[in-house]
Amino acid sequence: MNKMKGNQTILYEKDVHVIEYASVASKKEGEGPFGNFFDYIDEDPLFGEKTWEKAESKMQKKALHLALEKSKLKHTDIRYLFAGDLLGQLIATTFGIKDYGIPFFGLYGACSTMGESLSLASMAIDGGYADYTMALTSSHYAGAEKQFRFPLDYGNQRPLAATTTVTGSGAVILSNKSVSRKGIKNVVIKGITTGKIVDYGVKDSMNMGACMAPAAVDVIYNNLQDLGIKPCEYDQIITGDLGNVGTEILLDLMKEKGKDISDRHMDCGVEIYYPEFQDSHSGGSGCGCCAITLCGYIFDKMRNGQWNKVLFVPTGALLSPTSYNEGESVPGIAHGIIFEAQ
Amino acid sequence: MNKMKGNQTILYEKDVHVIEYASVASKKEGEGPFGNFFDYIDEDPLFGEKTWEKAESKMQKKALHLALEKSKLKHTDIRYLFAGDLLGQLIATTFGIKDYGIPFFGLYGACSTMGESLSLASMAIDGGYADYTMALTSSHYAGAEKQFRFPLDYGNQRPLAATTTVTGSGAVILSNKSVSRKGIKNVVIKGITTGKIVDYGVKDSMNMGACMAPAAVDVIYNNLQDLGIKPCEYDQIITGDLGNVGTEILLDLMKEKGKDISDRHMDCGVEIYYPEFQDSHSGGSGCGCCAITLCGYIFDKMRNGQWNKVLFVPTGALLSPTSYNEGESVPGIAHGIIFEAQ
Repeated sequence: MNKMKGNQTILYEKDVHVIEYASVASKKEGEGPFGNFFDYIDEDPLFGEKTWEKAESKMQKKALHLALEKSKLKHTDIRYLFAGDLLGQLIATTFGIKDYGIPFFGLYGACSTMGESLSLASMAIDGGYADYTMALTSSHYAGAEKQFRFPLDYGNQRPLAATTTVTGSGAVILSNKSVSRKGIKNVVIKGITTGKIVDYGVKDSMNMGACMAPAAVDVIYNNLQDLGIKPCEYDQIITGDLGNVGTEILLDLMKEKGKDISDRHMDCGVEIYYPEFQDSHSGGSGCGCCAITLCGYIFDKMRNGQWNKVLFVPTGALLSPTSYNEGESVPGIAHGIIFEAQ
Repeated sequence: MNKMKGNQTILYEKDVHVIEYASVASKKEGEGPFGNFFDYIDEDPLFGEKTWEKAESKMQKKALHLALEKSKLKHTDIRYLFAGDLLGQLIATTFGIKDYGIPFFGLYGACSTMGESLSLASMAIDGGYADYTMALTSSHYAGAEKQFRFPLDYGNQRPLAATTTVTGSGAVILSNKSVSRKGIKNVVIKGITTGKIVDYGVKDSMNMGACMAPAAVDVIYNNLQDLGIKPCEYDQIITGDLGNVGTEILLDLMKEKGKDISDRHMDCGVEIYYPEFQDSHSGGSGCGCCAITLCGYIFDKMRNGQWNKVLFVPTGALLSPTSYNEGESVPGIAHGIIFEAQ
């Protein structure tokens, strides 16, 4: 069987099983609509640490640990860890996972990293390189603001188009073996659609939804084309963190391309906070946004049989303070994962 | 056949062919011992651009372009690009490759990124996910000093244990198909050994060799153990950029573990500059160091039949200005690739 479909999509020969997952979040996320779905919520945004970076490392460690605990696996069972975060040189990841001694591939896909890590972690299972792999990612509001915009202490005002980086970490364990649980469906990865960098020339670091929407369109459109299917094949098409502004652009561009997905689209960034009273502006963002939505709300809905087939499309804005200050645009990227509940 | 060997190594079922490669370097590297092996040398360290970051992007573009040209492939033939660099948010890569529209996985493994990208790019070929993949990486002396230590204009003095970041970019095209060339051997990837993060607690950002050596030891030792072989199985065991200080530590630690590799070890960082008159201190470093040594000197020696089996081990120091300033150590990582000439 040829696993390659069209230009950007692959379908696996055997199902890659999502055997367990875990999510860690902070107070604000816990007070949002998905609060009940998270495995662990810490009221302290520093997670008991002295710096934002260490707090983020601790979240990754906690998510990794919880996913292992829930799956009754040991860290030595995980053959490869695919992980990353938003910070320069991936320090949240490095210092979060360094004590576990798991063979490690460091990834940077901005806020699309959960899609990138799931893509490569599932490839490693299907290719016969591992019995268990883990995809892990995180983001932290204060660490991200400090690195990309202004430290919180500066009290900078943020425009309404800006999104709020989610403080959270999600971990997913994949395997070639399934686990049977009574009354609960198994979630599997059927295939992936890998994104290209798409640059529409947007230079506004406070409007990342607009930077990322064209990349999400590219992945969703090519997923449908490569597989010769219609949007109705999926119960839900879920983007990462386009926010309100980016979602509008996404739906418009998809309509222009003759694929109306508005009746089955959801954006994790739009849903993760209550817009009325959580002051999140255009919504949530960051690697953690779609990671904790996936490792809670989305997987739970699939295990319960409410959604059977989901196209999950984490989106990333390749923003850097250096390139931004040098007058460059903010290109976007997205990675698509085809989940099915069985 | 079980591809998994021991804890960290995989052997592919079919050979993954290195069908073409290209290297781009700057003046200093061109004047070094490997100068004749590089495909393109620019006398201008800015490569005609206005910033160091744009110069590095241009190097990646050039390396990508030259590898395609040499292989007579089009950019649309490359199904996946695995690439990265040292800069925060991988901006050298993002802006170097964005116009090619190749499905892209962004990687960060510090100076080990050539090993990480070759690992994943070869997995994608063996797994049946692509006919052609590319591994691409780069580093730039001035961009790296600006980000990690002090801008060059500052005129900071560097201790003798410090290495010199190589200005260069290397690209490798892998395929499931071989290309036959008269009188030239084919280089293939037989397998990989994936590294773990190893942290000996070294906190000296000016002595990265010491930070990385234990990670290289871990990969080389486990490669030999996982495959049940002795060092003499390889004609050469080549590390990335340990430099003089790190190489000494590597050889000592290997001897302590009962594996003497001193008669067949080479370090790209030690070899890439003339120590007598190039003022490179402990040697070369950066993703570009082992990348251009591979995509020139090493592959040439293999194609000519001088080396038949090489264990290539790019090494990375997971240094970040943020974590360093917060008092953290500099953990190391390394990734091993088994090359064979046929």
